Amino acid sequence: MQVYFDNASTTPLLPEVKEAMIAVIDQHYGNPSSIHKKGREAKIIVEDARRIIAQGLKASTGEIFFTSGATEANNMSILCSIRDHSVRHIISSNIEHHCILHTLDYVRENGLAKVTIIDVLSDGSLDYEKLKSTLSESEVKTMICFMHVNNEIGVINDINKLSLIAEEHKALFLCDTAQSIGKLPIDLSTTRVSFVCGVAHKFFGPKGVGFIYVNNDNMIKPLIHGGSQERGMRSGTENIYGIAGMAKAYQLAMDNMADRKTKIEEVKSYFQARIQAELDDIIINGGEPALYNILSVSFPSTDKSDMMMMNLDIAGIAASAGSACSSGVENESHVLQAIGHDPKRKTVRFSFSHLNTKEEVDYVIEQLKKITPTKNDG
Amino acid sequence: MQVYFDNASTTPLLPEVKEAMIAVIDQHYGNPSSIHKKGREAKIIVEDARRIIAQGLKASTGEIFFTSGATEANNMSILCSIRDHSVRHIISSNIEHHCILHTLDYVRENGLAKVTIIDVLSDGSLDYEKLKSTLSESEVKTMICFMHVNNEIGVINDINKLSLIAEEHKALFLCDTAQSIGKLPIDLSTTRVSFVCGVAHKFFGPKGVGFIYVNNDNMIKPLIHGGSQERGMRSGTENIYGIAGMAKAYQLAMDNMADRKTKIEEVKSYFQARIQAELDDIIINGGEPALYNILSVSFPSTDKSDMMMMNLDIAGIAASAGSACSSGVENESHVLQAIGHDPKRKTVRFSFSHLNTKEEVDYVIEQLKKITPTKNDG
Repeated sequence: MQVYFDNASTTPLLPEVKEAMIAVIDQHYGNPSSIHKKGREAKIIVEDARRIIAQGLKASTGEIFFTSGATEANNMSILCSIRDHSVRHIISSNIEHHCILHTLDYVRENGLAKVTIIDVLSDGSLDYEKLKSTLSESEVKTMICFMHVNNEIGVINDINKLSLIAEEHKALFLCDTAQSIGKLPIDLSTTRVSFVCGVAHKFFGPKGVGFIYVNNDNMIKPLIHGGSQERGMRSGTENIYGIAGMAKAYQLAMDNMADRKTKIEEVKSYFQARIQAELDDIIINGGEPALYNILSVSFPSTDKSDMMMMNLDIAGIAASAGSACSSGVENESHVLQAIGHDPKRKTVRFSFSHLNTKEEVDYVIEQLKKITPTKNDG
Repeated sequence: MQVYFDNASTTPLLPEVKEAMIAVIDQHYGNPSSIHKKGREAKIIVEDARRIIAQGLKASTGEIFFTSGATEANNMSILCSIRDHSVRHIISSNIEHHCILHTLDYVRENGLAKVTIIDVLSDGSLDYEKLKSTLSESEVKTMICFMHVNNEIGVINDINKLSLIAEEHKALFLCDTAQSIGKLPIDLSTTRVSFVCGVAHKFFGPKGVGFIYVNNDNMIKPLIHGGSQERGMRSGTENIYGIAGMAKAYQLAMDNMADRKTKIEEVKSYFQARIQAELDDIIINGGEPALYNILSVSFPSTDKSDMMMMNLDIAGIAASAGSACSSGVENESHVLQAIGHDPKRKTVRFSFSHLNTKEEVDYVIEQLKKITPTKNDG
């Protein structure tokens, strides 16, 4: 049996998304910048996609720009805010994605701005009081960077609260929504965020395409210069199949959010209940509120636990040790370190989708019982 | 009849490329950074593609990095060379693509380096003597940026000669090969170039994916920071369908280069011979050597010539006024200005592929005769 419990790393392309992409490939190969019919057809695809994303986020179409993914979008938000809005202090947390933390390392090493990293609490939740006090002491233009949902332990930040804190301190607010887009409602007409970054391959869309929302009040200049595509914000011929695929995937995610949530919660709670009942010395990492599709499980240290990822892999089970996004290296994750996880224990992140089933859970538990102590062992 | 004579703007996806992409979509949705089987499968696709590109260019696989396109790659070459190699002077020409020229505007406006733009000669060819004298007078670390083939008039620069000039002056050499990849042989084992940038959608591959070759002797640090994909050079989850499609398109272009060239030359020379014989007061822009797929034609100013692009479009003919890459704006192109083109005359760039036919040429000429004077009119 092959089981894919690694949906927070990436998701398969849905058939409807594939169809949408193939329709574009077959019929629309023009360059959206060309003024002839083929070009205009391609342009319409890009603009239709922009409208779908904008409507879903309750943003204006003029605030949505397509990028190669969330990594580029997050880099753009940070680096262009320093350059264009004279941001001189950036406050973030120690459980952000590497595309934030490594960009902030770069910012610090090159003296582009002061960087303050706030440690999360032991359940992975944000230390809002520390954030407020740090903001109060900040005397220069400041930006706060906090993810909506953590990719390893699923903890959800309160972006409405964050937006109010940012507003009070006249700080810019970058929210990396890579994990939450299409899974949690985001209403930018009521929640004031400066930058929102998303990526299609986390919600059953294609890889290599994402977007950045830039609030009209804090427009930036481009990170990548050239032919002035995306109304001058992001040059380079548009990935029209990817953009069409992302829009389709986003539409499906929005239309089916409640249904998918119900299905995923059922699978996740069944999984969680069974491992807690049947496996010995299990810890669920991270507190509540957490996104319904991520379950980070810490297993006891045993002779076999070092080989846990390999044994799951051999059994046809895809899951992650930490996040997938650190290029194939299985190190103790910075997120687990941040929440004081015992490095001797072995953590596996199981992340579910609406395509997963209880039968898959049964199979995974059967395999886990071979490599980690069960309650009956005791 | 629908005729696509705008292949320098972008090309349709070949069926074989589409198949290669669909095979990946159907079978390989893993994240190449995941260490499980699904991840490793995706990683293999990316690495196989890298090997194909590297072999074609006679480069090492360690010198090829995937990007979202040539625009990103060109930006990266310039901005990272300034930062990482202390480049303080950049020399380029006035007919480069906007992704070079607008990046150089940015460099100049932000005082990152001195920029010298060398005017091309009236046939569009590079002023090598001026380049040499400018390099001789340059007392700081210098980079030269010259495209292999101009996208509007097709003139070919001698990259071997340029590489020797760069070497003599210890300058870095960035060559934008967006138009030449898969059409002209490029051998990086004998021609010493610092950076080479290419993009798939110009050679029948997908949009939204390209590559940068970075010579081992002038490695740079990333422009986009994050999960350390592409061996730390370019973060962001890889566009695996795009990368697979690009590799397939590149392989096909390399395997069929001679055949395609023969077909295109036949169509182009037939077209050129007929318009020169039958249409009045025609000028072919740009001198030799020029790439075999681009023909920039200047038509006399008449009552109807202002509407030429629209009339061609209505007749189902896709061609460009200038390049396609300036976001839908039909201005007098900077390339035509550079070669002293009379702005009252109307220029159309026809760019051909091996998929075009003489029948299409016949149709286009029939339509052109309705909107521009023929020799018989006189």
